[in-house]
Order: sequence, then C-alpha cells, then structure tokens
Amino acid sequence: MDNLARMTPPVNDAGTTASHPAPSPALLFDTINAYQRTATIKAAIELDVFTAMAGAPATAEIIARHCHAASRGIRILCDYLTVLGFLTKSGGQYAPTPDSALLLNRKSPAYAGGTLVFLLSNEIKGAFDHFTEAVRKGSTAQSRGGTVAPEHPVWVSFARSMGPLMVPAAAGLADLIPLDPNRPTKVLDISASHGMWGNAFAAKNPKARIVALDWAPVLEVARENARAAGVADRFSAIAGNAFEVEFGSDYDAVLVPNFLHHFNASDCVRFLKKAHAALRPGGTMAIVEFVPNPDRVTPPAAAGFSLIMLATTPEGDAYTFAEYSNMLAQAGFNPPVMHSLPASMNVAVIAGR
Amino acid sequence: MDNLARMTPPVNDAGTTASHPAPSPALLFDTINAYQRTATIKAAIELDVFTAMAGAPATAEIIARHCHAASRGIRILCDYLTVLGFLTKSGGQYAPTPDSALLLNRKSPAYAGGTLVFLLSNEIKGAFDHFTEAVRKGSTAQSRGGTVAPEHPVWVSFARSMGPLMVPAAAGLADLIPLDPNRPTKVLDISASHGMWGNAFAAKNPKARIVALDWAPVLEVARENARAAGVADRFSAIAGNAFEVEFGSDYDAVLVPNFLHHFNASDCVRFLKKAHAALRPGGTMAIVEFVPNPDRVTPPAAAGFSLIMLATTPEGDAYTFAEYSNMLAQAGFNPPVMHSLPASMNVAVIAGR
Repeated sequence: MDNLARMTPPVNDAGTTASHPAPSPALLFDTINAYQRTATIKAAIELDVFTAMAGAPATAEIIARHCHAASRGIRILCDYLTVLGFLTKSGGQYAPTPDSALLLNRKSPAYAGGTLVFLLSNEIKGAFDHFTEAVRKGSTAQSRGGTVAPEHPVWVSFARSMGPLMVPAAAGLADLIPLDPNRPTKVLDISASHGMWGNAFAAKNPKARIVALDWAPVLEVARENARAAGVADRFSAIAGNAFEVEFGSDYDAVLVPNFLHHFNASDCVRFLKKAHAALRPGGTMAIVEFVPNPDRVTPPAAAGFSLIMLATTPEGDAYTFAEYSNMLAQAGFNPPVMHSLPASMNVAVIAGR
Repeated sequence: MDNLARMTPPVNDAGTTASHPAPSPALLFDTINAYQRTATIKAAIELDVFTAMAGAPATAEIIARHCHAASRGIRILCDYLTVLGFLTKSGGQYAPTPDSALLLNRKSPAYAGGTLVFLLSNEIKGAFDHFTEAVRKGSTAQSRGGTVAPEHPVWVSFARSMGPLMVPAAAGLADLIPLDPNRPTKVLDISASHGMWGNAFAAKNPKARIVALDWAPVLEVARENARAAGVADRFSAIAGNAFEVEFGSDYDAVLVPNFLHHFNASDCVRFLKKAHAALRPGGTMAIVEFVPNPDRVTPPAAAGFSLIMLATTPEGDAYTFAEYSNMLAQAGFNPPVMHSLPASMNVAVIAGR
C-alpha cells in the first residue's frame, strides 16, 4: 500500500502561503546528521559490501553472509546506501551503481576504498573536531601548523591511498601537454606524492625523464609506483621543501598538482617565480587544482575545498581562475588556459613561459 | 571572468559513451567528507553566525565583527553554508534563507540551534564511532543497550533541546484529534519528554487533563514547560518504564510520539495492547513517527532514521505504515490513517479503539 494514498494533507498549514513554502527543519537535521553519511560509507567499505554484491543483484541476507555481518545491519546499511545513491534497490535486492562498481569493488583496478585512510585520518578529519576554533582564528587549530608542517606523515598516507584514483586525470594532463618526441625532455613533478602525474608523462613520452620532488619518505612511494609503471630508469628524485631546495633547470614542464592550495597567494607567487626560472623558454607550467568559480560557492566540490584548507592549514585556500591568472602573471608566465580533467574534480591551469 | 568560458572539454574521455556518463568520484568524496557539513553547521551555530546577519545582508567582515571571529574564517564558513543551502550570496554579501532566519537566529521563537546538544551528544553521535561494529552485530555497539537503557540521561538533553521544534507539529496533531468539549477529558502522553505534544492538547481543549509518562528526571522538564504554557493545573505525571508502570484507564487519547521506533515489533504490539486497554471505547491512539515508504529508501529523512536506530538501540527501526497497521491490528485497534504534520518530518498514524 502506498503511503501517499493514505496521506491526508496537513490540517494546520500555518505559515504557508503561495509564495512562501512551509518552513522545514529538513535541511538543518540532514546537515547536523551528515556525519552519519561518513560512517555509512566507511562501514560499507570496511565490511566490503560492494565487493560482496559484484556479479548480480543480491538480498541483504546474501550480502550479509559474504560480509560476515548480521542481515539486519546489512539491510539498514544498504537501504541508506540506496538513499545516498551508491546502490539501487528493486524487489528487495540491491545492486551497485556503475560508479560504485568501478570505485568500490575491491577487485576493480580503480578501487578507491583506500582513500579512507587519508581522508578520514586524524590529520584531516581530526582537524574538524576543532573547526569552530579554526573559523574563529581564520587558520588551522591543529598544532604544528597543520598538514604543511615539514615531513608531515599524512603525506605518506596520501601517497599510498590516493594514487589509483589520479590515473585517468594524470593521463588527461599528459595528453594536454605534448613534449618534443625528437629530443630528451625533462619534467619536474612538484609534491609528486604517489608519482602518478609524472608517470603519465613518462608513459606517453619515451624520451622524457621525470624528476619527482617531495618529502623523502613520500618519494619512496613514488619510486615504487615508477617501478610498477616500468619507468624507473627515467625517474629521479629531489627530497625536501619545494620552497627551499634546488630544482635544477631547463625543464620542459613543471607539474604542480594539488600543492598551491596549501599556501597564501604571495607564497604561491614566490613558488611560481622559482618554477619559472627552472623552465626552459617555451616550457609549460601545469597547475592541477580545485578551482571554484568567481562566486566561490560553485561548483560544490571545488568551493567546499577551501573549508578543508581552513581546517588543516595556516593560510591555504581554493583559489579562483582569476587569482591563479594573477599569480602566474606576477611570476612572469603567459596568460593561462583552464582545462577539465577526466574522472576528476581537479582542473588544470596551464601557462607557457 | 566565467570559468566555463575558459574551460576546454576534456581531451581524454575514456569510458564515456552516450549511454554511460563518465565515471566520477564526486559522490564518494562528498560522502566520505560529509562529516564536514556537521562541523560547518555546528561552528555556525556556536559562533552565532545567523543571529549576526539578522536584518540585512552582510559581508564576511561585518559578520566576523559580530561573531568575534577572523573574517577569513567567516568568509570560508559562509561560502560553504551557501553551498549547503543555508545562506544566499550576492555581490559578496550573505543573507539567511527564510528557513535559516526562522530556525537559526537565536532571537527567533522557533530557534532550533539547541538541538545540537542532543543530536551531537556522545550517546547519539558517539554511537556512530562504532558503526561498522553495529552493522556487523545488527545492533547498537554502545554499552548498556544504547539509549533505551533505564533512566538514560540523554533523554533529559533531548527534552531540553528538542521541545521548541515540536510546537507546530504538536498543534497539528491536536487539530487532528478533537476531544469532547462538553466533559472532562484525559490524554496520556507516552515518553512525554518536553511535554509539547500534551501541552498542545491542553491548550486546545480547556477540559482536558494531561498525564505525562517518562523517566522521573525528564518529567521535570515537561512540568516546567506545562507551567510555562499555563496548563500546569491540568498536568500530572507517571514516572517509570512505559512497559511496566500502571497507566490508569478511560483515556480519550494516548499519544505515542517517537517512542515505538526504539523497540522490536513484538514489543511494540505488547505496548499497544497495554495502551489499548487504557483507552475508553471510541478513544484514539496517535503514533507520531518517522515512517518510510514500503521501499524503505524514501523519503530520505524517514528512511535514514533506521540508521540511527541501528547505531543507538538493540532492536529499534523505522517501521512502514503497513508494519504499524499490522501492529495496531494485533493490538485490537481499527485500521489507522496516516497524516502529515506541519513543519515536521514526523507523520501521525491515528487509529480508533
């Protein structure tokens, strides 16, 4: 029996007029309770629910058996995963959406469940336990300057968990920046992390050498991934602080993926001047970033990224395209062009020297 | 400059076909990061952002001055409140939506910011720290049986913080159940909490007496609110466990607001039989609840409520209308009718004896 068929209209609609809809606490409660979404996807990944239902739609009982969990727990969990859009439900059976099958089945090459380790780490999620204080200060309330502290261990966790997800975007970036195939070329990968951005350039350009820069323990992860990608013979590394170490010179491209958002605008300009000097004439600067529109409230993922910078860094931000254009101009670059990247919320801001 | 005007299409759209949209990690990241929404609304309420912008649209600088906070922090916070739908932003100025002005300005009589105390209490939010374990067990992983433990202190916090928000729905319920104005009548309010449901019946029916049932410390809150509503002379109380204490008899109505969801179906039937016996012939049972559709995945707020019951109770659930109809039939009631309630995600399921 459909609820709506039995539902009478409210007898008291005080406050409702044609132009003003009835007041509703729905958004408020949904937002206060939003942490339950985090707990739901975390539980689903930890119990491997999406792997359990690979193949065919399954009932809560079948999924529960695969996950060694109570069917009541799985039924309530899967219903809420359906509410959130990770599953579809029909006739008491649950099935993953195409994105869930791709990203959340542990057997998928694009499995992204590992990102929990970084995204829900104490360094990131824990920073939001003090978020009211961060808003009041206008800066992270974490000790040691948040995640930009030297050699912060969270970046090893980032490198280990976020790499696979960056592969399509990295390939897209390499397609955007063709290197000269007729001579040895050289790409500097700043805050290389997992190394996936540089690896994509090495894979596409057989004569390109990649120089990865990051904290020393992070570079171990990049080196492993370069080996796995079969490009270790063209991989070298510079360990240390990107504001302080020597870059070398005559690079064909400098990649700056998800690095500048950690700093204030004048530090970004200082960094970009240093990168400019390391490029050969005609070389390319490629900034990969969360870039909100000028209104700073769209699109949601890029606009929301500044919140993470407020919680976890002293002065970081999600900068607009106009702001990056201005920084690049101050550093001596030509006007940039922005490009979307496949399967990513990042965009590329590309400028020539 | 509009981002879209400078945005080129992705050069690599591997995986994209006309029928399959490109894969996207957007929902996954948005869900993993959803706890940040909770932190955002909590910070906004704690810093009293919505009260600060009462009157006229305001810049981040003006709001920051009112809130004694850094303007950078307020700018990033208010941008994200705009992304979430609590504010609008135009020309660098922020303004509350009508719902935010009603529910989140501390000077509004419908101020709902106090609900944080209950909704983010250790008993509720803390239960989700062990949510994977709750799914595995199919039952709360909290000690002492979760929130249904005898005299659990969370219910005093609930009574103190949730009352004001229930006023429109309580008035709506009283309108749905007219009592005989020509004789003394009697209403039993089960898990009375703040007492707002009973108070609405007392206010509308001058000859009605209200008997509130709850744990003894909670009844102090109901008594205060009855006094504030000017109906204390028609208010009395029964302290204890609703499954065990004597109800008395000859009630014209029994109100059961947000109580049955804490228990399994057979305990609900046992309770409803006891309530049936306490009603006079022709009396009315009024269940107020989160009632999902038969698919259990719509509407979102009612469907999502079962998650809270999994995390915080041994066997509670969000029951469908068919399930409540079945319980009521087993307890001897006539078939129920469901009604929406104003400004509420609760509905009323009303059945005659």
